[in-house]
Amino acid sequence: MIKGDFTLPGEAGYEELTLELAKKWGADAIRDSDGTVLSDKIISTGYDIYSTICLVRADNEWAKANRNKLQQNYLMSKPVVAETHKIEIDLLSGFFREQFEVNASDDPKKWWQVFDRTTSEEIPKEQWSFNPSNGIVTIEKVKKWHQYTVNFLAWQIWEGISMYNHTTNNWNQEHQMPVDPIYPETQQFMLDYLQKWLDEHPHTKIVRFTSLFYNFAWFWGDPAIQRFTYADWGSYEGTVSPRAMRLFAESRGYEMTSEDFVNNGAYCTSHNVPSERLLDWMDFMNEFVIGFGRKCIDVIHAADKVAYMFYDDHWVGTEPYCKRFKDLGFDGLIKCVFNAFEARLCAGVKGVGLKELRLHPYLFPTGLRGEPTFMEGGDPALDAKRFWANIRRGLLRAPIDRIGLGGYLHLVQDFPDFVEAIKHIAGEFRTIKQFHSEGAPYTAPLKVAVLTAWGNLRSWVYVGHFIHGMELYEITESLAGLPVEVEFISFQDILDHGIPNDIDVILNAGKVGTAWSGGEHWKNEKIIETITEWVAGGGGFIGVGEPSAFPNSGQYFRLSHLLGVDREIGQTLSNVKIETSVAAGNHFILEDIDSNIDFGKDIDNIFVLSKDTTVLSEIDGSPKIAINQFGKGQSLYLSGFKFNAENTRLLLRSLYFAAGRQSDFGSWVCSNIHTDCAFYPNTKKLVIINCRDFEERTTVVDGNGKVFDVLLKPHGIEIIDL
Amino acid sequence: MIKGDFTLPGEAGYEELTLELAKKWGADAIRDSDGTVLSDKIISTGYDIYSTICLVRADNEWAKANRNKLQQNYLMSKPVVAETHKIEIDLLSGFFREQFEVNASDDPKKWWQVFDRTTSEEIPKEQWSFNPSNGIVTIEKVKKWHQYTVNFLAWQIWEGISMYNHTTNNWNQEHQMPVDPIYPETQQFMLDYLQKWLDEHPHTKIVRFTSLFYNFAWFWGDPAIQRFTYADWGSYEGTVSPRAMRLFAESRGYEMTSEDFVNNGAYCTSHNVPSERLLDWMDFMNEFVIGFGRKCIDVIHAADKVAYMFYDDHWVGTEPYCKRFKDLGFDGLIKCVFNAFEARLCAGVKGVGLKELRLHPYLFPTGLRGEPTFMEGGDPALDAKRFWANIRRGLLRAPIDRIGLGGYLHLVQDFPDFVEAIKHIAGEFRTIKQFHSEGAPYTAPLKVAVLTAWGNLRSWVYVGHFIHGMELYEITESLAGLPVEVEFISFQDILDHGIPNDIDVILNAGKVGTAWSGGEHWKNEKIIETITEWVAGGGGFIGVGEPSAFPNSGQYFRLSHLLGVDREIGQTLSNVKIETSVAAGNHFILEDIDSNIDFGKDIDNIFVLSKDTTVLSEIDGSPKIAINQFGKGQSLYLSGFKFNAENTRLLLRSLYFAAGRQSDFGSWVCSNIHTDCAFYPNTKKLVIINCRDFEERTTVVDGNGKVFDVLLKPHGIEIIDL
Repeated sequence: MIKGDFTLPGEAGYEELTLELAKKWGADAIRDSDGTVLSDKIISTGYDIYSTICLVRADNEWAKANRNKLQQNYLMSKPVVAETHKIEIDLLSGFFREQFEVNASDDPKKWWQVFDRTTSEEIPKEQWSFNPSNGIVTIEKVKKWHQYTVNFLAWQIWEGISMYNHTTNNWNQEHQMPVDPIYPETQQFMLDYLQKWLDEHPHTKIVRFTSLFYNFAWFWGDPAIQRFTYADWGSYEGTVSPRAMRLFAESRGYEMTSEDFVNNGAYCTSHNVPSERLLDWMDFMNEFVIGFGRKCIDVIHAADKVAYMFYDDHWVGTEPYCKRFKDLGFDGLIKCVFNAFEARLCAGVKGVGLKELRLHPYLFPTGLRGEPTFMEGGDPALDAKRFWANIRRGLLRAPIDRIGLGGYLHLVQDFPDFVEAIKHIAGEFRTIKQFHSEGAPYTAPLKVAVLTAWGNLRSWVYVGHFIHGMELYEITESLAGLPVEVEFISFQDILDHGIPNDIDVILNAGKVGTAWSGGEHWKNEKIIETITEWVAGGGGFIGVGEPSAFPNSGQYFRLSHLLGVDREIGQTLSNVKIETSVAAGNHFILEDIDSNIDFGKDIDNIFVLSKDTTVLSEIDGSPKIAINQFGKGQSLYLSGFKFNAENTRLLLRSLYFAAGRQSDFGSWVCSNIHTDCAFYPNTKKLVIINCRDFEERTTVVDGNGKVFDVLLKPHGIEIIDL
Repeated sequence: MIKGDFTLPGEAGYEELTLELAKKWGADAIRDSDGTVLSDKIISTGYDIYSTICLVRADNEWAKANRNKLQQNYLMSKPVVAETHKIEIDLLSGFFREQFEVNASDDPKKWWQVFDRTTSEEIPKEQWSFNPSNGIVTIEKVKKWHQYTVNFLAWQIWEGISMYNHTTNNWNQEHQMPVDPIYPETQQFMLDYLQKWLDEHPHTKIVRFTSLFYNFAWFWGDPAIQRFTYADWGSYEGTVSPRAMRLFAESRGYEMTSEDFVNNGAYCTSHNVPSERLLDWMDFMNEFVIGFGRKCIDVIHAADKVAYMFYDDHWVGTEPYCKRFKDLGFDGLIKCVFNAFEARLCAGVKGVGLKELRLHPYLFPTGLRGEPTFMEGGDPALDAKRFWANIRRGLLRAPIDRIGLGGYLHLVQDFPDFVEAIKHIAGEFRTIKQFHSEGAPYTAPLKVAVLTAWGNLRSWVYVGHFIHGMELYEITESLAGLPVEVEFISFQDILDHGIPNDIDVILNAGKVGTAWSGGEHWKNEKIIETITEWVAGGGGFIGVGEPSAFPNSGQYFRLSHLLGVDREIGQTLSNVKIETSVAAGNHFILEDIDSNIDFGKDIDNIFVLSKDTTVLSEIDGSPKIAINQFGKGQSLYLSGFKFNAENTRLLLRSLYFAAGRQSDFGSWVCSNIHTDCAFYPNTKKLVIINCRDFEERTTVVDGNGKVFDVLLKPHGIEIIDL
């Protein structure tokens, strides 16, 4: 297959370039992008036409005429220290005033809350007043030197993604405002608009939603201080409105408060252990989004078109990893990707037709961090190859149906090597897809369950961008390219169903108190019992950073009896620690590593509980890697994790070790850790890839001991017929 | 003055050596040591005779005949994971069986507690039983995979200090057992013994108690695993007995439980914020120790002798920093010292006559960490000079009356350079003492209050040995040699009396949750109000590590509004941090530092709260030093602290800065940070010391701008007459 499965961003005014590149890259579909249009000349070429629509910001005239139906947020005013017994708080101080406007029309006394954050007490409503003319709340009878904040409703008067594209690309157009589909009138408007739009786009085959209704939480700051003040890809802040809260109370039998969303300024962050109330709200919004979203998709299907969803931006409420997701009826799901774990995130969704990746770099002058891309100083061809090398690790493991680009096509004109790079990438993609289509690749005889407070709902962590230094992101990126089955489970899953029979290793990673490590869930004795019994019976447990941590003077790691190590946090310094030294000899899990282990920032002050714990590596006397036997099972502690080739191999071997399968290790693993391979048994193809910028030599041993030896170009690929 | 103020350890069999060194070192007193005796030949020389007595281990025959009056401890058995519904716990497993014996005579069902440590629940007494014949507790109906421990009473069958000296010096004598003076019979025995001992020691002038009754908590481990399992110099573990607990209940109106002492295995550690109950117990024991201790001292005074106390070993309950201490009537206090802060600890005690320092190295073959001293491979002269250089910093600031040595005198015979070194040290000591006697040295115009949960009671931290890496120890050692007034205050002091009028700077340092940082005290709004108001009015606040830390999603450092920084602990990663860069130019506090700042282990993930915070140094984007103005006051954050010359100077300048006194900085400060000076206005003497092993040149500017320039020998001293 030499063409197809590729979506090209077309651009009016560059029709020849559009068609030339469509041919060169083997495109079968042409799309518009936010800020670009397709001309009739492009539309009439016979390519499938992708058109982007974002119903919540589709018609600014309607939005302007219905400002009481804009989307809202609960914001917390920046803390103010009281220097007298009466203070004034300028609600939007510190926020971007072009993004937010205080909602004075829904009764502040009903919907807002004022807190003494020094004591966490709410201030009685009669003690404060709001002046709509200047946006200031005055609080009387405050306690001097305490800090006060106001939880208030603010309209979103500039839609976040549009705002980002506008400011990044120096647009000069009217600010687009997002409307809230929670109102019946908005729903009707949106359905009507959609029908009209479909009628006006007869050539469009694929309607790409960007995305449904609610954007991830993205609060911008006062530009004099900071561009962004809050950003969480999984947070439901944008779904709030008095109407939604009323509907929730009717449906669920209790009322949410502003503080449920504000959470002392941490908002509904994905990093916190979700409360039952937050999970209820998410479930409620998911029900709403699926319900109304389905109506929109039905309109599209009735027009004989297909509907794809962009799995970024306004994805909140759709929850692709939720059982309801299939009810939406989407025909495709598109994910923009920098890394392998994002490819796996997309590939893992069930209940949707096609899956497509939007590759980076976007055809924009600068990248997401402001670095030059399609401009002087940029090297988009190298960027593309590197991103591809990252993503390709994941693509070897899980199938994706299509790839594509986004942005301004004309920008590629000065970068012919980028055009060539994409041509090669498209070819490689089609080859790998072909192998997948004939059967799944070989995986190691083990399955790992990543245990977090979110479980399956936030599989492959919570995306947005790779948060470097956060243990679970780093691990997830390693896992994304390993030949192992991966599942994400929650503490509630364990309570409800126990540990699934097919799991060989449980992995828990993160900082104490976070959703990733598990926080208060580790107080639950049933969790401790279940995992302890399971490991005693032969299960494997891998803990990274502060696994199972819960502050408790006796046992900081609540599974320290399995791990064989615990952490000293300064409160039990008088308990003398047992001295150990690094075990002699090269342990199975370290066999491919010839350099020092670099976990980035290690969790320090780790100590062994007994002489039975084996320390494989340490830093300043604190174990970096320790293993311990408990009953028939084995546990492994890592003091941190950083995604790189050495640690990825360390993790693969650790999984084999924890699963008690080290004797099975060897076949279908590259000798050179900077390369990866996948064997597709049905087609008898062995794919070997080079993840680095340098030429690399590697060998692979098949299941019968036969050795294959290849020399790979930088970022190269070799395919061997067996 | 060329002689006096020096206590020499005499040794029978080495009479000539004793007298020769007494002359050479200018001794005016000769002492015995644990393990040595003085012969008549020594006793009759006319020197003051110091004799050591430790009443609780004075007569092993009496102890053997009264095994039900030995000292006790509550121990927590090592945690056992239940693999079935019935478990057996060998109580002394993991402990040193030569130190402890289970107390089966006081009803276990009354005095012991069994806990499920997985749930923190106590197990009903009917579910467990104790078998005295094998020391095993059997627990029925346990929850599988939970961890269980037993709090039990154990007799101390080998007194800790004696055990240490015995094992270190390979003694072969009977194990000495400590008796408990809580029993009237023991008290009578001790008073009788003391009287008899006094009668038998007519030549003794000074009775040195080593010390009174209760040793600091020192639990030894199973030698196959670890030598020590718990050590805390400030812990009251050793004061426990059913009788004491009954007397406490009568006196205080409520009962202590075993768990008040065991505290989930952390025991009554000094690192934890003391509970009200623990403070009550300490007060109760202090009352008892002072009461009976006074009776012993009265007996000595009646015999026309004086009584000194060794401020180490069995010092628990005496509490030299407690108001009652003066009631004991001690004539002298002796502290063994390695560091300047220990010298200050001794010097700071009120209500006692003389203060004496026991210098290191002890005349033992090896040091406390097992390193060679008076044996092949040792260099005791260099050790002595280095210890002296450490201690001398503190001696310049606060007066001490005497110095001395301890151990086996004969060991010095092979080390003539050690003999010379001590001669020089004794001379320097007498010179510095002389200056102090004529008036206090100059101090900077500022006073710092170190704020901890313990306050004055644990002034100069809690000693024992320097715990390297613990912020407050490191700071205290720097402070000990600085020309500033230092006071230690508690949170309760602030609640009771506010911040003393003479304080210019408050310093809070340590890890979250510890007694040093303050733990739960930071929840108290009154504390926040008082300190905030005080800084707003012009006070200075210095926070180190995790100052004012209390986990709370809004404000981890509860005084972050003063410090201008807070810490990200992984739960608010979605709150975008304000970017800053290190301020240009060399700030006042960094002026003498030409190398990178090394705080040892920094607290990471610090971020600024606003652009108003000035960052002076950072590591990996996390501020190491930040300053912030609040009202009229200034605060300073340090991400860690390590005692060295650079940081000591940094601290001195930080104090001037926080106090708003930087314009006063300059006079009576050495230009070379490896040297220190003290100016004694009454005698017009300027003392300049070299703290290093190398020759150093330094200048000092007096109050009128006159510059003094000196070249100092390694560890040297220069005295300038002004």
